[in-house]
Amino acid sequence: MDSLTEDAAPDAALLDAADALALLRARFSLPPGLIYLDGNSLGPLPAALPAIMAGVVAQEWGEGLIRSWNDAGWIDLPMALGARLAPIIGAAPDHVVVCDSVSVNLFKLAGAALAMRPGRSVILMEADDFPTDAYVMQGLARLAGATLRRVPRGEIAGALGPDVALLLLTHAHYATGAVHDMAALSAAATAAGALSLWDLSHSAGALALALDEDGADFAVGCGYKYLNGGPGAPAFCYVAARHHAALAPPLQAWMGHTAPFDFAADFAPAVGVRRLLAGTPPILAMRALEAGIATFDGVDMAAAEAKSRALVRRFAAAAAALPGISVDALPNERHGCQCVLRHPEARRVMAALIARGVIGDVRPPDRMRFGFPALTTRFADVDAAVAALGAVLASGEWRDERFAPRGMVS
Amino acid sequence: MDSLTEDAAPDAALLDAADALALLRARFSLPPGLIYLDGNSLGPLPAALPAIMAGVVAQEWGEGLIRSWNDAGWIDLPMALGARLAPIIGAAPDHVVVCDSVSVNLFKLAGAALAMRPGRSVILMEADDFPTDAYVMQGLARLAGATLRRVPRGEIAGALGPDVALLLLTHAHYATGAVHDMAALSAAATAAGALSLWDLSHSAGALALALDEDGADFAVGCGYKYLNGGPGAPAFCYVAARHHAALAPPLQAWMGHTAPFDFAADFAPAVGVRRLLAGTPPILAMRALEAGIATFDGVDMAAAEAKSRALVRRFAAAAAALPGISVDALPNERHGCQCVLRHPEARRVMAALIARGVIGDVRPPDRMRFGFPALTTRFADVDAAVAALGAVLASGEWRDERFAPRGMVS
Repeated sequence: MDSLTEDAAPDAALLDAADALALLRARFSLPPGLIYLDGNSLGPLPAALPAIMAGVVAQEWGEGLIRSWNDAGWIDLPMALGARLAPIIGAAPDHVVVCDSVSVNLFKLAGAALAMRPGRSVILMEADDFPTDAYVMQGLARLAGATLRRVPRGEIAGALGPDVALLLLTHAHYATGAVHDMAALSAAATAAGALSLWDLSHSAGALALALDEDGADFAVGCGYKYLNGGPGAPAFCYVAARHHAALAPPLQAWMGHTAPFDFAADFAPAVGVRRLLAGTPPILAMRALEAGIATFDGVDMAAAEAKSRALVRRFAAAAAALPGISVDALPNERHGCQCVLRHPEARRVMAALIARGVIGDVRPPDRMRFGFPALTTRFADVDAAVAALGAVLASGEWRDERFAPRGMVS
Repeated sequence: MDSLTEDAAPDAALLDAADALALLRARFSLPPGLIYLDGNSLGPLPAALPAIMAGVVAQEWGEGLIRSWNDAGWIDLPMALGARLAPIIGAAPDHVVVCDSVSVNLFKLAGAALAMRPGRSVILMEADDFPTDAYVMQGLARLAGATLRRVPRGEIAGALGPDVALLLLTHAHYATGAVHDMAALSAAATAAGALSLWDLSHSAGALALALDEDGADFAVGCGYKYLNGGPGAPAFCYVAARHHAALAPPLQAWMGHTAPFDFAADFAPAVGVRRLLAGTPPILAMRALEAGIATFDGVDMAAAEAKSRALVRRFAAAAAALPGISVDALPNERHGCQCVLRHPEARRVMAALIARGVIGDVRPPDRMRFGFPALTTRFADVDAAVAALGAVLASGEWRDERFAPRGMVS
């Protein structure tokens, strides 16, 4: 058998030339020469945003001032952006609203879910899920008299007992990239009398999603990763239509009131997901997220997921040949748009790699995480990143003192 | 008696020429010819911001990408902005943190207060306070098994019974401008075994405050009004040092963790007010607020309050002479930087006034509210605004169909 013929990956230049999504890279402003494989942590700058933001600041705020709440449509942005984001996650336009952070939205939706399942007090999660989801649930549980139950990945369906009010799962795992079967687990939750809440932080803008079709009850997701909304961008909430009438988030405030400018004494919820709004929407951040969502105009998310999968697999196969590196097995046929490599000195190796112009991130103690968003990543980037990592390892330059860990964010 | 001599206000041009704060107006970009008396609802654009924001977008985000969390100090902005804001509100630097919205922060601090007063379940508020404060407390009370008690302004101290866990008050009332005695009511709360939470939305950047000295336990405030942080700017929390160790907000998340990038399974609060952070800080909005806070560099808040008081009184006195207008009495010696005029067709009259280039806002059914921030308002603006209002009323132009109410935000 001719192993060269068997194993050789197709030429990256050919793959990039044949890539129908390749032109989308022009929608971004990326530093020349940099290979950015951390869009799963912070998406890159949409090329249109500098001009948009200049106008928002100077005209909408500077000249329009308070009038822009009506005249520039500021007051409608949370619902308008939700509607624009909805098709990217497989939802009807009025099932999605943009507001607050993932953490705050988890609190609102999980609190609402507990109220919808009186007599049940358990919030079921996957052990080893992204920590903030557990932190938020621990705080909510303390206040609401609920209990957080965390079980290994394989035991989730079996743990859906009669005491479970809510099943909270991250669709694509932040570290492993493992993807849950949303339809199956939502159905299992429903069959057990529980509600499902999906964290889409590593899925929205990365994977093909079908929230309405898959029977999800609730979802939250992140604006600053694959959606390219900017650092700390607003997050979003999804609520299935069947729950709109009963939804009563414990964190309720004036922008979720049915008539906020009537200044009524008592809360009365707005129709639908608008009731999930709390404080005044952050307009500058909303406009940036709007530009990020616009980078998906016309994108078929199934094609985007397929491209990312091909990128991830090419990277994993090539990296497996590097000395001192082990590649986390890709969890199953479907997985997140990322790949984890292990090295005992992950922070130093990543720092040295960044110095060579290839950016990923680190999840301690030993994981280097690389993301492959379909809109910006070329097959040639994969090859160049592996080559750079190979050079870092071969030279041993990561042992240099200048690559010692520093800074809070790894 | 020569009433002309007795009553005539000093010439506006003389007052403006003698105003030590007059030069601060150059720190803002204000549309030429517009008289903007709604900085109490949305502060104007800091002149430095367009260039700053262009750099934040293009360099910090576009070029720095994920590295900017360390290299541009993004991760420290919530505490750094809190420290910068602290002197404006009379607090030590590490007593203040910038995060989320007023509504979300009210929830966090009131929830923490309830946990610190086990066996007490009443949240005491002033009836007719800004509605979102009540909405948030109604939602919290439902989840926490607490009770919201609202009493008229004069009955607050008397209602501080042994069942009261928390006294929540707005320092300067959004509609009337009435100002509570923070020291006296904080002391009354303490004496009754309760905690005090002050909403500074209409005070921070407007009035001289002394949170530490006055014995406040907690406070929240708004970034987009007098602090000039931009539409929907992040809000802030204040916590007196004596509560830092025990503070346990029910809404807890990764940015409030003592080591967020260790990805530990269980929540462990950061030291001090940093634990009030929830999700990832919204960097673009934080940078805008930073520019807004910078407009206060070197400003003596007592002088600013005194100037605003003089502006308000000049406006109230002149407006009282207009036909069909009644002026809400200024509540006491000290009051918010605003004045309320009543007219049965407030929305139409305001629309007509805005068409003449004078912007205030409306609080239904009959209130027109005008704000007089010291950093941007001239005595000549007061006279010009009253003259324009006089012209609107004299002509009856507000009856025109083009001034019929429309739009959600009044």
